[in-house]
Amino acid sequence: MAYTLGELAALLGGEFRGPADLPIEGIAALESATDREITFIAQKRYARLAGQSRAAAFIVAPEQAALERPLIVVANPYLAYARVAALFAPSRERWPGVSDLACLGREVELGQDVSVAPLACIGHGVVLGDRVTIMPGCVLGDHVRLGPDTLLHPNVTILERCTVGARCIIHSGAVIGSDGFGFVPGRDGHTKIPQLGIVVIEDDVEIGANCAIDRGALGETRVGRGVKMDNLVHLAHNVQVGEHTFLVAQVGIAGSTKLGKHVALGGQAGVAGHIELGDGVQVAAHSAVHNSLPPGQIVLGTPARPREEFLKFNAILPKLPDIYRRLKQLEQQIRELSARLEGESKT
Amino acid sequence: MAYTLGELAALLGGEFRGPADLPIEGIAALESATDREITFIAQKRYARLAGQSRAAAFIVAPEQAALERPLIVVANPYLAYARVAALFAPSRERWPGVSDLACLGREVELGQDVSVAPLACIGHGVVLGDRVTIMPGCVLGDHVRLGPDTLLHPNVTILERCTVGARCIIHSGAVIGSDGFGFVPGRDGHTKIPQLGIVVIEDDVEIGANCAIDRGALGETRVGRGVKMDNLVHLAHNVQVGEHTFLVAQVGIAGSTKLGKHVALGGQAGVAGHIELGDGVQVAAHSAVHNSLPPGQIVLGTPARPREEFLKFNAILPKLPDIYRRLKQLEQQIRELSARLEGESKT
Amino acid sequence: MAYTLGELAALLGGEFRGPADLPIEGIAALESATDREITFIAQKRYARLAGQSRAAAFIVAPEQAALERPLIVVANPYLAYARVAALFAPSRERWPGVSDLACLGREVELGQDVSVAPLACIGHGVVLGDRVTIMPGCVLGDHVRLGPDTLLHPNVTILERCTVGARCIIHSGAVIGSDGFGFVPGRDGHTKIPQLGIVVIEDDVEIGANCAIDRGALGETRVGRGVKMDNLVHLAHNVQVGEHTFLVAQVGIAGSTKLGKHVALGGQAGVAGHIELGDGVQVAAHSAVHNSLPPGQIVLGTPARPREEFLKFNAILPKLPDIYRRLKQLEQQIRELSARLEGESKT
Repeated sequence: MAYTLGELAALLGGEFRGPADLPIEGIAALESATDREITFIAQKRYARLAGQSRAAAFIVAPEQAALERPLIVVANPYLAYARVAALFAPSRERWPGVSDLACLGREVELGQDVSVAPLACIGHGVVLGDRVTIMPGCVLGDHVRLGPDTLLHPNVTILERCTVGARCIIHSGAVIGSDGFGFVPGRDGHTKIPQLGIVVIEDDVEIGANCAIDRGALGETRVGRGVKMDNLVHLAHNVQVGEHTFLVAQVGIAGSTKLGKHVALGGQAGVAGHIELGDGVQVAAHSAVHNSLPPGQIVLGTPARPREEFLKFNAILPKLPDIYRRLKQLEQQIRELSARLEGESKT
Repeated sequence: MAYTLGELAALLGGEFRGPADLPIEGIAALESATDREITFIAQKRYARLAGQSRAAAFIVAPEQAALERPLIVVANPYLAYARVAALFAPSRERWPGVSDLACLGREVELGQDVSVAPLACIGHGVVLGDRVTIMPGCVLGDHVRLGPDTLLHPNVTILERCTVGARCIIHSGAVIGSDGFGFVPGRDGHTKIPQLGIVVIEDDVEIGANCAIDRGALGETRVGRGVKMDNLVHLAHNVQVGEHTFLVAQVGIAGSTKLGKHVALGGQAGVAGHIELGDGVQVAAHSAVHNSLPPGQIVLGTPARPREEFLKFNAILPKLPDIYRRLKQLEQQIRELSARLEGESKT
Repeated sequence: MAYTLGELAALLGGEFRGPADLPIEGIAALESATDREITFIAQKRYARLAGQSRAAAFIVAPEQAALERPLIVVANPYLAYARVAALFAPSRERWPGVSDLACLGREVELGQDVSVAPLACIGHGVVLGDRVTIMPGCVLGDHVRLGPDTLLHPNVTILERCTVGARCIIHSGAVIGSDGFGFVPGRDGHTKIPQLGIVVIEDDVEIGANCAIDRGALGETRVGRGVKMDNLVHLAHNVQVGEHTFLVAQVGIAGSTKLGKHVALGGQAGVAGHIELGDGVQVAAHSAVHNSLPPGQIVLGTPARPREEFLKFNAILPKLPDIYRRLKQLEQQIRELSARLEGESKT
């Protein structure tokens, strides 16, 4: 597949500089693009590298429009990159219809143009929306429901009665609807609390590889519209994740905690159970949040603290041995001064 | 399925207040229960919310028995909740017998009423106890043994020769018996140490989704009776976990470490290799333990320290910039005082 | 299978003490070896335990050659242990050829003696080198390439176009080639950036259970020759891992970060995106690295700092409450001294 510079500019709603019929056969990073590929400059600091790039053309913001190379000038080059990447994405072949080598339970409802690959297993009463794609090795428990255009990569497991909205992408190895971690502790053994709830994944959610999302103990674990989860994330039972929140890889959220909208948790961050993070909260990577946070708060550390507070004392930490030494020195000086004063006042 | 208030009270061994024939069709949380469902008050702080609840009835402790609503009064409402939840748990349909679409190796021993779903793969010489349930996508290596009433959720992998006891529940994506991480380091490449051991899971263990438990390098990795593991937990080779220990999500335990009984590790906690945590040790979430700990110790932080010690210095940390500023001020004052004394003694 | 002491010594290139025809039927740890098994002493501190061991013979370094038991003396007993373990490793039965119950796409190229187990799924245009082994439940996307002698344990997923070199071992549940976490953020929804790149795994790599390695956004995510990854490791898009690097369990590395050769990251360590760790860098377990590090640096903590610096202030931390108390005391003493001097100078 190939486009011309002029076609791409038109598709992006941007202006172009250079030959309209310049052929563009792909998109690549600044340093690896060939003279048949377009690249992009999303951050000013990369602009100085443009000179060495062999790229055929550049997608740039207006402030980079002086670059003397074939250009497409757009307001948001990063967004334009996403759009061009979609144009050049290699098409993935879907299994046509339902494979004879897939297992389907009773009373499965299939929308139009559903693709169920070989070695997928669909439980009783499952409902698959139009254009759903189920790759090999996926297992859907009884009465699972998937909205239209949702894609399950290979080896995804969705347990009974959980629901996934429209246009969701679930990556390989993810498990949705495993039992929550609920036990009544006892000296001679812990009693399992049956996990009766479900998981509800709303529309436009992406879930990374090998994530684990537990069903509610009672009621729901809910992942809001537009949430994006990276790999190996853990959501405990009855967690609520607000719309458009980002959960970076290896985040863990304990039971019944509620995240607002547009929250961002850095990689390996942990959040305690039964608390609430307001809209727009940001938690730095590898931090641990133990208390509820108001909207917009930015925190880091373990336990997490407001960013400014953390950065201030963290900068002093390496001085601690010196502080201790100087403190002992001061104590000695004070003792000497006091003794001297004592001596003088006696004389 | 429905019960009356009187029937539930009898099953729980508790007393009831209100109409014996009050129909109860399910159990739900305080805030979401309908007038056909029972709820429970496990902690005093929730008692004040009882007034607004629409629940048909409440399971309460004796100290909440004054609540003027239909009640079942029991010593431990949380345990009673677990029991009632078990009554109302939707029954899960098991595959009847061994599916034609499952693969079975040679010389497999099947107990009574074993369920092997389609697309499960059972190796040679595997032994499955009575009423074992194997869901789709599970793979059991050669000579694996599962005790009676054990349940494997979909897409579980148990590698060759590992054994799992009775009444265990293993959630989707868990891997039991992967090779331990053992290499002889070398400049031009590391030499793999063949991992000859196995994993032994004792009775009544629950293992969360996407956990990874490595086989012993030599000998066993052992998970003791009644241990409960949350999602995404890592156990390295030759780890020993004592009976009834709780491992919360994303915990990682390095090689040959031994945990006592009734230990509790919070989410994302890490434990170094070749150490020992005594019975009843508690490690806070997101902490890292580097040294052996005596029984009953409660620790937190990275590196983990006794709880009281950590909390004390952690409270002072934000004052550190102020401490440093005041220290420098004191030094200045001492210099001035000394100079003044020096001046005075010269006069 | 059994060897004699003399045969093992010859295979290891070591000298033996004791009867050449002493039968050795296996290898075991010092404390559990029977009188038919050999054991090894890899560290001096274990030498004192040799007396109580029932082992038939010992693999030791020259400095332990005085032990009055049947011995094999070698320069590196740990390496010798790895070699003997390989001799005694139980042989794993491979599926002979391609199972009728596996799914193969169009135009698959199979090397000699390839083993594809039942319930594996191989996409179109896949290339499998000689002696490749694919266990049950594995899914290979279209155009995946695996080098000779590579082994995929059950339930591994390798997505389209990714390549794996020769002699690699990939453990169960690992996912290679999932989409990187790339979105253009927006108030009303984030726009997915199609992930067009691939993952390249070079030769002699081992990847642990339930790891997740994302494909490049553009270009490659690359895992260098001889890299060893433990369980549940996350590699984001476009990460580059240098040759012979060790990544211990639950490590997470953010996008576009580059690790040098012979780097070692401890368990649960995290590394920020777009930075570079030089050859031989060592990061302690449960640390978080936010900045690039020069070759050979050893760091720990969150944020990670040079080892010596961290250890020094970490040792003082518990004194912080005492430091604060003594500081306040000094301030009081200074105030008193100043007042007294003031008084005296007035008199």
